[in-house]
Amino acid sequence: MAAPKEFFEYVDASAGQFIQRLGEAVAIPSISGDAARRQDVIKMSNWLNAQLQSLGVDTKQVELGTQELQGQTLPLPPAVLGSIGKDPKKKTVLIYGHFDVQPAELSDGWDTEPFTLVVDEKSGKLIGRGATDDKGPILGWLNVLQYHHQHGKELPVNLKFCFEGMEESGSEGLDDLVIRESKPGGYFEGVDCVCISDNYWLNTRTPALTYGLRGIAYYSIHVSGPARDLHSGTFGRTVHEPMTDLIALMSKLIDREGNILIPGVDDMVSAADAEERKIYETLDYSIEDIEEAAGAKIALSDDKVQVLMGRMRLPSLSLHGIEGAFSTPGAKTVIPAKVAGKFSLRLVPPQTPENVTPLVKQYIEDEFKKLRTKNKLEVEYLHGGRPWVEDVKHWNYEAAIRATETVYKRKPDLTREGGSIPVTLTFAESLGVNVLLLPMGRGDDGAHSTNEKIDRSNFIEGTKLLGSYLYELAASQ
Amino acid sequence: MAAPKEFFEYVDASAGQFIQRLGEAVAIPSISGDAARRQDVIKMSNWLNAQLQSLGVDTKQVELGTQELQGQTLPLPPAVLGSIGKDPKKKTVLIYGHFDVQPAELSDGWDTEPFTLVVDEKSGKLIGRGATDDKGPILGWLNVLQYHHQHGKELPVNLKFCFEGMEESGSEGLDDLVIRESKPGGYFEGVDCVCISDNYWLNTRTPALTYGLRGIAYYSIHVSGPARDLHSGTFGRTVHEPMTDLIALMSKLIDREGNILIPGVDDMVSAADAEERKIYETLDYSIEDIEEAAGAKIALSDDKVQVLMGRMRLPSLSLHGIEGAFSTPGAKTVIPAKVAGKFSLRLVPPQTPENVTPLVKQYIEDEFKKLRTKNKLEVEYLHGGRPWVEDVKHWNYEAAIRATETVYKRKPDLTREGGSIPVTLTFAESLGVNVLLLPMGRGDDGAHSTNEKIDRSNFIEGTKLLGSYLYELAASQ
Repeated sequence: MAAPKEFFEYVDASAGQFIQRLGEAVAIPSISGDAARRQDVIKMSNWLNAQLQSLGVDTKQVELGTQELQGQTLPLPPAVLGSIGKDPKKKTVLIYGHFDVQPAELSDGWDTEPFTLVVDEKSGKLIGRGATDDKGPILGWLNVLQYHHQHGKELPVNLKFCFEGMEESGSEGLDDLVIRESKPGGYFEGVDCVCISDNYWLNTRTPALTYGLRGIAYYSIHVSGPARDLHSGTFGRTVHEPMTDLIALMSKLIDREGNILIPGVDDMVSAADAEERKIYETLDYSIEDIEEAAGAKIALSDDKVQVLMGRMRLPSLSLHGIEGAFSTPGAKTVIPAKVAGKFSLRLVPPQTPENVTPLVKQYIEDEFKKLRTKNKLEVEYLHGGRPWVEDVKHWNYEAAIRATETVYKRKPDLTREGGSIPVTLTFAESLGVNVLLLPMGRGDDGAHSTNEKIDRSNFIEGTKLLGSYLYELAASQ
Repeated sequence: MAAPKEFFEYVDASAGQFIQRLGEAVAIPSISGDAARRQDVIKMSNWLNAQLQSLGVDTKQVELGTQELQGQTLPLPPAVLGSIGKDPKKKTVLIYGHFDVQPAELSDGWDTEPFTLVVDEKSGKLIGRGATDDKGPILGWLNVLQYHHQHGKELPVNLKFCFEGMEESGSEGLDDLVIRESKPGGYFEGVDCVCISDNYWLNTRTPALTYGLRGIAYYSIHVSGPARDLHSGTFGRTVHEPMTDLIALMSKLIDREGNILIPGVDDMVSAADAEERKIYETLDYSIEDIEEAAGAKIALSDDKVQVLMGRMRLPSLSLHGIEGAFSTPGAKTVIPAKVAGKFSLRLVPPQTPENVTPLVKQYIEDEFKKLRTKNKLEVEYLHGGRPWVEDVKHWNYEAAIRATETVYKRKPDLTREGGSIPVTLTFAESLGVNVLLLPMGRGDDGAHSTNEKIDRSNFIEGTKLLGSYLYELAASQ
């Protein structure tokens, strides 16, 4: 059962209004990682809750407790749960999304105000923080609901919604909620499959379905020594400087080819055989695509398969920065007393935060001993999530493939993704049902970056895709 | 000719008022490195100018042009020149000091508001940004002037003053002024010697005179690649990450023992012979003093001579931080597009910024080539100053030694200092006269650090020292 023609026409005719609503959502700076913006994340929860209600969805906002952040005790932003349709003859689909966003400041290098959605008529880009991650996709679902609500039409499936406001900060509080509501009698009882639209096409051309995600394990290496910051003139070459030790440790984590130097971590993952390499060879994706998305010719290798596997089936390690050191413009002659180096691992099966963390800690502690410094070390595991790989032969994927063919007139790439959406695994394990990642945006959207955007066509055709997917689900066995 | 007894009594009796005036000076947050505080540095220039005038000094404020800072064109804070006494039979002494300060925020870890002078009656500490670096010493000179002004007494020498507001930011604009005014017919014509009170005793017990300073050369290593910040999930292990390259480069600058790994830099400095080692053995200074000042047992060696030479007669290298990377609390999964690693070298004769900079650039460029990365490198020299060593047999030093014996009843340590006051060399070279560094504060004052302080006794006895020095100068041949 394909979606009605009228639905597609409605979406095209309503594009202007849909974009206006996206602008309203982007205007709320719901940065979950910034204590000063917590009220905006809560405001965003309220806004979304009201939108769902106005479109006929039964909702409830669920308090998730409190959090210590930047020296304050803050309420976690309430999750928004929703339900529409209770027909036992229909499938029940659980939709997940998140309404919080990454930090963004004009001074980070944005060309336009990050929290004002800019519609670039020439390029077709809708530019603003959260446009693609993940407010655009959430609003895609609202668009689908609006069509049915305004036309008094029943949805082809029953829908449950689970929208959270802490995804960019480790989804704090969500796991407990999902696990609790997945139990018999819980809010998610009777869910047949899950759909998450919170990732991206590989490139800028080919729609994709995603059946794998890397996990993550985020660490902070704390090195401390002096009781206070010291003057580098008075103390340079007299004391063990924490920065010297920290930089030495951080330099021992990854080599120039991207190999992880922590013993045992890369080794956990089996090498790809010829058959598996073929999967990566056939994807509509090239070194040029990666470099276009990165904005520079900086691919680690000229071998497409190697680079794609580096993203999809191998772990990675990135050095994010240092807390406590001099970090602003200018030339401050400080010896920082206490510094924390931040890095994260992206994990693939069979890696988990539980099995890599002991290796990470042991290695850093061993390397620290080799420095024979009198400073102090603490390796802190900040947060993480396990990797996930799904069965692509399931009707959930088949429905999404048919919907893609209807809207985009082509088969989607079937991909594994480099990023982490830890809640994916929580849904898969708690509900025991198939989980589909159905991306709306393109590979060059710049999620987490400056000038984040979603293309107008991806937002509008993506809305059609989400609607079509529900109709195809209803038709599948 | 010793200072009159009445002077010492006056200083003791006026201590409360002197401390109150220091509080006024500390309350002006004259941070030269922060564009937002530029007006406060200018305010401080005006305050000091008015104070000098009220004490009978002829002054003028000298505009030094403009500066590009943090994207703004700012006026440099005017220097304050002053002159009192024109007796051709007296010596003429040039006094230098600076009225700008390092940045300070309560959130850096201060126990009290940095720009409110706190008088801790129990410990005798006067706590606040600039208390010791360098507002305390400047106000010491005002205290001496006040005695003579209120009592209608002539000073034993002619005085010239040169106070600047950019010392913590490379003394921008000052060199030109000093060179210009040192020429025949200039403001500093006829100066017989220079005194600078802008450093510290080695320890907390023994007054010191300082006859040597290390120079400095400050660098920024810029590594850039992607056109924008990238998501570590999507791009981890696919591209050359600027942070990976930068950390690799920064790790190759210094080893765990404090040795500088840039070829040729340490080698420029001759090894100390037995006689020279003896100088360091006899100084009233211990590993415990260093560790007490640092607040932790983190000395690089158990050999006192080695540690003291590390501070006084060897170059050092400190890693200060990274601009452009993630630097705040939390766990941001960013691959920064453009990062700048900041480090500085402290230099000793015969090193100069001019002769070490080519070595620094060549080495970093060579190491960068070894990384075979596709990112881009730029090594930037930000600012610097040459090292300086003075003749301690000169009457300028002899007067200061006698003054120290009068006030503190002991001989001062004769020291070389690890820090850099580039203007010292400018005065020495431009005027061709002897320059003395006459410290007021103690080794644990925490200049440039949190909870900066000057001890009440150092401020008050230090005022007596400065006054006595002028009388001893008048008596010397």
